[in-house]
Amino acid sequence: MTNADLPQTISLLTRSPAALNALLRGLPEEWTLQNEGENTWSVFDVIGHLIHGERTDWMPRAKMILQFGETKAFEPFDRLAQLRESQSKSLDQLLDEFAHLRSANLSDLCALNLREDDLERRGQHPALGAVTLSQLLSTWAIHDLTHLHQISRVMSHQYRKAVGPWSEYLGVLHCTGHSS
Amino acid sequence: MTNADLPQTISLLTRSPAALNALLRGLPEEWTLQNEGENTWSVFDVIGHLIHGERTDWMPRAKMILQFGETKAFEPFDRLAQLRESQSKSLDQLLDEFAHLRSANLSDLCALNLREDDLERRGQHPALGAVTLSQLLSTWAIHDLTHLHQISRVMSHQYRKAVGPWSEYLGVLHCTGHSS
Repeated sequence: MTNADLPQTISLLTRSPAALNALLRGLPEEWTLQNEGENTWSVFDVIGHLIHGERTDWMPRAKMILQFGETKAFEPFDRLAQLRESQSKSLDQLLDEFAHLRSANLSDLCALNLREDDLERRGQHPALGAVTLSQLLSTWAIHDLTHLHQISRVMSHQYRKAVGPWSEYLGVLHCTGHSS
Repeated sequence: MTNADLPQTISLLTRSPAALNALLRGLPEEWTLQNEGENTWSVFDVIGHLIHGERTDWMPRAKMILQFGETKAFEPFDRLAQLRESQSKSLDQLLDEFAHLRSANLSDLCALNLREDDLERRGQHPALGAVTLSQLLSTWAIHDLTHLHQISRVMSHQYRKAVGPWSEYLGVLHCTGHSS
């Protein structure tokens, strides 16, 4: 694996649900249901998006690489699915669901008993072209981090005025939303 | 408080240490001791910085506002203190220390029994000029988030090559380091 190894990747994937749970469970809705303006996501939306990824993206794509290689392209990922699927759920329910799905997916990953040469097998991304299993699994972990980065920014946005002149020093308030 | 209230602020300040603990404790050092290049911080450095803030910044400044108002400027904050103070400690020790100090500081804050008009009292920042207690406490919370934002970016940087062509889609890899 180039600049990544599987235990290192799994160490992060294992911890993300508990980290999000510790940060978000029970927080006032002023932090979790507000977004950054029209057509942007709240923390609630982001957790729904992570759930959809657990269901349809990472492990299904890993299995496709192993089964079909480059002969069959992945299904495109639906970036708006959570707007339908999270309706009528609470944030606490979403946090539970994410933790449960992640745990099951990591068990599935472990059961694949991947070897070094498996990690170099290639699949076909519908937009990016050829990608390796190693790249997919690394992206799974960094996708968690890109949304942790986004969550910290969305929450900070709610206090943009409240911090007064300190906004100058708070880098997160100068982030231009590249993770939305 | 403009766009902020004290229980909302405290709800976040209470959760940050547990969130960082869940994310970071036991992670391989490839995630926690690497930085983004010369003169940048690792995750380990960031937790040391948060500890220094608990010791010297937030509550000491809150007490200065209540005691001296605008007649005495805050001590400037030492942004490099952690490079001395964290030496020979482990990340787990730093996480424990941060949680302990934060908990004690929130007890102190609670014991102040702040009223609405206390929150509008002003102090003197050595560079920013007049600031209110409300702004200081809001900044304490957003300072946690700016460093969570930074941590997610520093960790992602370690997998910049490993994700291959997906780097295009991962916003955190396009963050220009405004939180460093």
